[in-house]
Amino acid sequence: MLHILFLFALVLAPASHAADFCVAKLKGAGGVAGYACRDPAKVTAADFVFKGIVTSGNTTNIINAAVTPVFVQQFPALNGLGLSTARLDLAPGGVIPLHTHPAANEILVVTSGVIKAGFITSSSNKVYIATVTKGQVMVFPQGLLHFQLNAGKTAASAVVTFNSPEPGLQILDFALFANDFPTELVSGTTFLDSAIVKKLKGVLGGTN
Amino acid sequence: MLHILFLFALVLAPASHAADFCVAKLKGAGGVAGYACRDPAKVTAADFVFKGIVTSGNTTNIINAAVTPVFVQQFPALNGLGLSTARLDLAPGGVIPLHTHPAANEILVVTSGVIKAGFITSSSNKVYIATVTKGQVMVFPQGLLHFQLNAGKTAASAVVTFNSPEPGLQILDFALFANDFPTELVSGTTFLDSAIVKKLKGVLGGTN
Amino acid sequence: MLHILFLFALVLAPASHAADFCVAKLKGAGGVAGYACRDPAKVTAADFVFKGIVTSGNTTNIINAAVTPVFVQQFPALNGLGLSTARLDLAPGGVIPLHTHPAANEILVVTSGVIKAGFITSSSNKVYIATVTKGQVMVFPQGLLHFQLNAGKTAASAVVTFNSPEPGLQILDFALFANDFPTELVSGTTFLDSAIVKKLKGVLGGTN
Amino acid sequence: MLHILFLFALVLAPASHAADFCVAKLKGAGGVAGYACRDPAKVTAADFVFKGIVTSGNTTNIINAAVTPVFVQQFPALNGLGLSTARLDLAPGGVIPLHTHPAANEILVVTSGVIKAGFITSSSNKVYIATVTKGQVMVFPQGLLHFQLNAGKTAASAVVTFNSPEPGLQILDFALFANDFPTELVSGTTFLDSAIVKKLKGVLGGTN
Amino acid sequence: MLHILFLFALVLAPASHAADFCVAKLKGAGGVAGYACRDPAKVTAADFVFKGIVTSGNTTNIINAAVTPVFVQQFPALNGLGLSTARLDLAPGGVIPLHTHPAANEILVVTSGVIKAGFITSSSNKVYIATVTKGQVMVFPQGLLHFQLNAGKTAASAVVTFNSPEPGLQILDFALFANDFPTELVSGTTFLDSAIVKKLKGVLGGTN
Amino acid sequence: MLHILFLFALVLAPASHAADFCVAKLKGAGGVAGYACRDPAKVTAADFVFKGIVTSGNTTNIINAAVTPVFVQQFPALNGLGLSTARLDLAPGGVIPLHTHPAANEILVVTSGVIKAGFITSSSNKVYIATVTKGQVMVFPQGLLHFQLNAGKTAASAVVTFNSPEPGLQILDFALFANDFPTELVSGTTFLDSAIVKKLKGVLGGTN
Repeated sequence: MLHILFLFALVLAPASHAADFCVAKLKGAGGVAGYACRDPAKVTAADFVFKGIVTSGNTTNIINAAVTPVFVQQFPALNGLGLSTARLDLAPGGVIPLHTHPAANEILVVTSGVIKAGFITSSSNKVYIATVTKGQVMVFPQGLLHFQLNAGKTAASAVVTFNSPEPGLQILDFALFANDFPTELVSGTTFLDSAIVKKLKGVLGGTN
Repeated sequence: MLHILFLFALVLAPASHAADFCVAKLKGAGGVAGYACRDPAKVTAADFVFKGIVTSGNTTNIINAAVTPVFVQQFPALNGLGLSTARLDLAPGGVIPLHTHPAANEILVVTSGVIKAGFITSSSNKVYIATVTKGQVMVFPQGLLHFQLNAGKTAASAVVTFNSPEPGLQILDFALFANDFPTELVSGTTFLDSAIVKKLKGVLGGTN
Repeated sequence: MLHILFLFALVLAPASHAADFCVAKLKGAGGVAGYACRDPAKVTAADFVFKGIVTSGNTTNIINAAVTPVFVQQFPALNGLGLSTARLDLAPGGVIPLHTHPAANEILVVTSGVIKAGFITSSSNKVYIATVTKGQVMVFPQGLLHFQLNAGKTAASAVVTFNSPEPGLQILDFALFANDFPTELVSGTTFLDSAIVKKLKGVLGGTN
Repeated sequence: MLHILFLFALVLAPASHAADFCVAKLKGAGGVAGYACRDPAKVTAADFVFKGIVTSGNTTNIINAAVTPVFVQQFPALNGLGLSTARLDLAPGGVIPLHTHPAANEILVVTSGVIKAGFITSSSNKVYIATVTKGQVMVFPQGLLHFQLNAGKTAASAVVTFNSPEPGLQILDFALFANDFPTELVSGTTFLDSAIVKKLKGVLGGTN
Repeated sequence: MLHILFLFALVLAPASHAADFCVAKLKGAGGVAGYACRDPAKVTAADFVFKGIVTSGNTTNIINAAVTPVFVQQFPALNGLGLSTARLDLAPGGVIPLHTHPAANEILVVTSGVIKAGFITSSSNKVYIATVTKGQVMVFPQGLLHFQLNAGKTAASAVVTFNSPEPGLQILDFALFANDFPTELVSGTTFLDSAIVKKLKGVLGGTN
Repeated sequence: MLHILFLFALVLAPASHAADFCVAKLKGAGGVAGYACRDPAKVTAADFVFKGIVTSGNTTNIINAAVTPVFVQQFPALNGLGLSTARLDLAPGGVIPLHTHPAANEILVVTSGVIKAGFITSSSNKVYIATVTKGQVMVFPQGLLHFQLNAGKTAASAVVTFNSPEPGLQILDFALFANDFPTELVSGTTFLDSAIVKKLKGVLGGTN
């Protein structure tokens, strides 16, 4: 048995470090590659499970839709795994407005209803639009403007997965109208009249 | 208008190449980083949609379960996106035997039923097991032995996503018993009696 | 001398392949990681030099500005080097409208004039705006909406460099209004009135 | 001389940080990309040398073999270098049982004796077996089950190198039988009878 | 408005971390992937601007030239962006002696004057030399010996950019003659007579 | 059995492509990421074994040493594995002159004799020198000038491994003196007198 233990000793050496996983210690700023690892000895099976997207997000809002991100900040076990996910819920008439994920590609699987989705390529500005139903899969390349909307009469939902624990999410309307981006600059860099910019800033809580 | 077209010319230049996506040309062996790109001008929206996992895989087999991979070979649009997926179907009593994905981490979302799943870490040989229900999420680090089984009385299913278009799938029993791996070597490298190895080779169609 | 040659033989072996560089063979679609390499024996010093941005791009257009990309399609030596560049020219009043580079970070060095530039972060929608003059440097993180405009009375120019041979360039107005993206969908995914969308499609040559 | 020093100042600026190396500070959990760097000013030539595999590991154990890892935990200079190594010692009859390295490819150079080694591919379950003698080289792709055994009458040894400072090491028998993995689950996910599982748990110190 | 705020809550979650950027906290050693991130809430637009290469470096030195690095240590915003830059200034007769960047490829844009530059490939020892003038671009593959010299009668300058925040800079003469590298070893590993080594050590401040 | 075969069909799908390995098809230039894959169905166990460094390289030359590279061009199975190796042989008095590997870090294991080795850091020009004996390990960071010489009275040898299939090898003397690099430029970019340059070009077969 001593010999077995001896062999173990050699083999176990690396185990003192999270060679297999690196559950994020969210306190304290992270670094370029993500967060520091929690002590692996204190990590339990529960740390690898996330229960926050079992039910629909609240779609009672101006877009009749909700995006519930499951990024590393919500699910620390994703740290270093190169993956994250999110739940999309679209009430009838719901729409996830044009947005991009600056740091990841996206794969979508419809879990209920009918969704029309599309993305626009860079440079050629070509638009690719498809309607996908329950169980169908669609992909969206990194950093490209894309949208999803409910193309059916009932609620629709989908699970999307990204190849990064921090894909980012830039929603076009919020980027333009939900902050203090000066109206004059928004107008000057988009060709939109100041009146339109001001009106949308009003709707989305923007200033300046 | 000429000026607009001129500006377009500059901007469109890169579009002749698949800067945004690289749908695989599966004919002809691929390379280290994946497959060559199909002519982007011939790619349509339909190429970004996959419809092959809408229904359950056939679970009428010895494991009462099915794994339906959606890797780049099944869904060429995944080429270069760093993502792939698969559908797991588990009839009552079904089990996905211990297996590894040599080239990717995995994130699982339960779409129906109750699944018990677990993985074993390297070096420390620690086992992490959890029971997840519809809508819950679980992750499995790259290259580690893991399993999923139906822990409920009804059929269960899940969507799993990998951070590689070619995660690989090595099922332990098939690796040991479903090929021509000489019984003597299987036995010598696993501590399993030859009789057991021969018996399981019989079940799984192995030889030698 | 024979011995020297012998030593050379060993050392030269790898030279038959472009271990040091991989000048792109643009003919034929590329692959996930870029293009195939031209025969290194036929590559000359001239292949590592690009002369296409010595003079200003044509700024006589609706934005009074020009972006002249020097990506791998224009400069094949960039293949595999993880770098590309572009020249920005801004006549008085010129502006590079809001745009993103889906696949690269950007570093800008002002070569003449005064430029006001800014980017908007994802998620928090925070706007970072600065005015930079000749010789000053500014960075723009990957995939985020950003702009540059001439903040002076004379022509301004800059050299920007990306950490990818194919950074991509998605200009917001072109993505929304310079293609066949259906007006109804543009409107429905941006909160912009159809009338505005139709008007801008008219200006930028869009349809539908 | 002042001018030389001035030039030095510019050039030396980056030296305050470990631009060239990042010897691991093992205290404190690491992060996704490895460990924090020790103060480069305190690093000496001795830090780049490892003397722990000069002699054979202890092969007086149940497998008549020993694996002596030289991963970043044993040799902090490997931090960030994308490399690690290990010494294999196989007494006559010795065998390194089936195992995987979840995070790295492996290259083996025989330093004495005769070794028979093999790996099994994923998906196709194809077995590749070869016998290698002193000075010969063999490779094992990442994450695949593989083994090495002494195919000669004298002691054999090899140096293996991995393209990661933390390749991981999952030995099949230890993963199945040397922990508290419930017998029922081991049996249910491997097709092995409970009796066999219990017996091997007894040999390898497993429980449950 | 409550609903908008609710939607914001979901979307803003990731913003507590620097998903978009990671301005370096230079105090404290960095890690393999770079430095820890400063609190994104305290980062301002000014952090993304660098003003230190507006004017020429001091070329009154033995090489009549200056390299002014803008690496992450000088410009913390570069942390994690995969980019850095530097300004080259060459008085008439100035030369940047043979050097390498161990960790990055380089792209050079001439901003004034005429520069002759070249690099030597590994293995084949082939030399690629070109003369570039204002506005022309040249690339230098990673890790290869290269030089730049003033080929005109007036001062010349260039902006170079690297695909790493820490490209490193190893100047051959300094590596050989500006340190305590024992003369006997320098001579023995370069074929240079000890007398020559001693003389150059004298010029460059070396010892031993 | 039909059911087993059915399950196999699903699982085998990806096997038609080299998901696990990508043995190089050397004919035809490679690409940025390496070479195209040979048809995996035609790959045999022998393809994963290399027998070319069993015996010493020829050290009867001006450096009394030999470097025998085992890069992807010599051992096609290394394609995509992120690893390569080489054998160093040093007769008494032998030396591997100062050289760099532009694309990889290096780990060295002494297999016989006594070797003195060292490397010089970039920027700080600090020299790290150590003497290593049989079984000892030393590392050399990417792209830094380093050397190895026989510090004993008997022949010495070592196995070095790189974290790239194409690490590159730039030997300083060959780069400076064994090609057509004009004497005037060599002298002007190294501070070496033309006479010395001409003399060494004579020894190493250089011209100009």
